[in-house]
Amino acid sequence: MIEFSPIGIIHTPWKKGEDCPIQPSRSDEAKGMIEVFPEFVKGLKDLEGFSHIYLIFHFHKSEGFLLTVKPYLDTVKRGVFACRAPRRPNQIGLSIVRLEKIEGNLVHIKDADMIDGTPLLDIKPYIPEFDRRTVIKTGWFGQVRKSSGKK
Amino acid sequence: MIEFSPIGIIHTPWKKGEDCPIQPSRSDEAKGMIEVFPEFVKGLKDLEGFSHIYLIFHFHKSEGFLLTVKPYLDTVKRGVFACRAPRRPNQIGLSIVRLEKIEGNLVHIKDADMIDGTPLLDIKPYIPEFDRRTVIKTGWFGQVRKSSGKK
Repeated sequence: MIEFSPIGIIHTPWKKGEDCPIQPSRSDEAKGMIEVFPEFVKGLKDLEGFSHIYLIFHFHKSEGFLLTVKPYLDTVKRGVFACRAPRRPNQIGLSIVRLEKIEGNLVHIKDADMIDGTPLLDIKPYIPEFDRRTVIKTGWFGQVRKSSGKK
Repeated sequence: MIEFSPIGIIHTPWKKGEDCPIQPSRSDEAKGMIEVFPEFVKGLKDLEGFSHIYLIFHFHKSEGFLLTVKPYLDTVKRGVFACRAPRRPNQIGLSIVRLEKIEGNLVHIKDADMIDGTPLLDIKPYIPEFDRRTVIKTGWFGQVRKSSGKK
């Protein structure tokens, strides 16, 4: 067993799972605010220089897990590790959001796609040299996009 | 407290932390192999369609944490959440690697940058529409790169 403790709480406009946009890029720029717990505030130094950050968080409302799941965008069950669905063996969420500003322990963001009250586990800077990849294949996702046209 | 259990183990050529490349993109395509535990193998369905995947893992050799840390590429201490360093409040690592092939419970990868024996927590597909962002600011990282030239 590996134990983690939240470093803060993410406040968003989304009160229920079904209200959440499927990804930050489809959130219509929804504003959110991260409340970082006081003991971790020093770790936010220099973060404001980045326009985009990764949030790693706990899907705390997700109970149990499935090994195959029907993605929101598809009609066929896919392996859970080939999806971004919340009911995973370890209920870890990953979103890239835009950083607006930091005021003390409050980190203001755009593109929030997680439920209000989500426990935050980590923040990492998004660095294009490390994180932008030239991707060749996107499996079921690419097929669905191709057959449905861009939604 | 939030409890997670590994879904597998990542095997890489890097036996010690100091041997590891600082990021997958600087790993010289190092090969690695993920051994997924039998009970999670069904979750790998459809994953082989993706050329790039996120690995979310536990920095299991990292003890304690620092709120400010001198990044490998810099000479100044930066807030830990503005870095990708392993000594974090929650010791969660995030790498984008290339998926070569899947054989049963073995996922063969390139660009491995983590230490051999790393416990794997999650796999997610890398989807450019969600994960490639047009980034404006990269804070201290951008400054260091600018002043030092591309390393």
